[in-house]
Amino acid sequence: MSTHDRSRLRKKPERARPDPAFRDAVLDEGLVCHLSWVERGSPCVLPMAYVRVGDELHFHGSQEQRALVHLAAGGEVCACVTLLDALVLARSTKNHSMNYRCVVAWGRGCELLDLYEKRRSLDLLVEHVIPGRTGGARPPTEAELRATRVCAIRLDEWSCKQREGGPRDYPQDLPLEHWAGELPLSIAVGEPRQEVGPAGERPLPAHVRDWRR
Amino acid sequence: MSTHDRSRLRKKPERARPDPAFRDAVLDEGLVCHLSWVERGSPCVLPMAYVRVGDELHFHGSQEQRALVHLAAGGEVCACVTLLDALVLARSTKNHSMNYRCVVAWGRGCELLDLYEKRRSLDLLVEHVIPGRTGGARPPTEAELRATRVCAIRLDEWSCKQREGGPRDYPQDLPLEHWAGELPLSIAVGEPRQEVGPAGERPLPAHVRDWRR
Repeated sequence: MSTHDRSRLRKKPERARPDPAFRDAVLDEGLVCHLSWVERGSPCVLPMAYVRVGDELHFHGSQEQRALVHLAAGGEVCACVTLLDALVLARSTKNHSMNYRCVVAWGRGCELLDLYEKRRSLDLLVEHVIPGRTGGARPPTEAELRATRVCAIRLDEWSCKQREGGPRDYPQDLPLEHWAGELPLSIAVGEPRQEVGPAGERPLPAHVRDWRR
Repeated sequence: MSTHDRSRLRKKPERARPDPAFRDAVLDEGLVCHLSWVERGSPCVLPMAYVRVGDELHFHGSQEQRALVHLAAGGEVCACVTLLDALVLARSTKNHSMNYRCVVAWGRGCELLDLYEKRRSLDLLVEHVIPGRTGGARPPTEAELRATRVCAIRLDEWSCKQREGGPRDYPQDLPLEHWAGELPLSIAVGEPRQEVGPAGERPLPAHVRDWRR
């Protein structure tokens, strides 16, 4: 956690979570990162898959992908991973809120060019999203690795926020007869849909059946 | 949809969804927007609650909230709403993907100062997140409306993307015996947790019980 002004939470400092273990838990649970950068003076933001590798965030895509071209050139980005935990219903409209955990990180990009490192990063990305999956799919070829751009930022400057618990109603609102509380939200996993190929129907692997159960 | 270069999808144009009805459906289903802006030359991105009001996106918060201060000053932002629909498991590691729907919009902010408009926007925000809720909570006072900053951007320049369907495996990978297909994801709603106040336990309102069921 840096002492840089922008990663210090000015508003609602009680929501700050400066613990790197908290940061890593959010990054390891998230599936999508919103990556922002400046292009010709204007802000841009896109959703990206990602994986945390130690104190780095890695991003993968085609050689032409705009955010990756920016990262490969050493450009600065701001990355945000948000987990929505609950809707918070207060007795007043104004105090409605959401429970969430969020990591925001700033950094300059660099590109991984070594094929061994790129292979490792791709494996880690797939394992981040679906633990066990690298054992159930064909590994990348050298040509595939060359066609993939892999970029990283170091987690040097970051901040974490969390809102948790029930509504913060004003004392004068507490006697109101409105229902107040939390509606917890998480990820629902539907029935896996197999795409049957020439090899015919395949048994459902444990890494699909047990995903986040 | 603008013809501006940055809202044209250069990569994978088959994923573009230029239909305003598609855009509105994504914006109306989403709960969190990732709002990015440029601060002293650097990118920033934060999660924000939002509501679509016709051809505008509205954001609410305290008077001091950084993104809102930027919007109120007419600053430019890029807003992104992403819905994650499925994990896509290919027969090769490299072709793994995610199904998603995404709206990216650029605009300059403006502030709503009229109290009637602010009240309407706050009601619409609460109704966007929890339909029916404004009938089950105390409406805002004039002082609360004055303490809340409400900003908007017009949806003049935007792009939508969607990836759907199963894996796009290379033909030579189709005979591989790996399980391939989709794992659908959506929002899971947990058991509502009531915060019992001086008025005692309240019956669960329909707008909580039936939320997204």
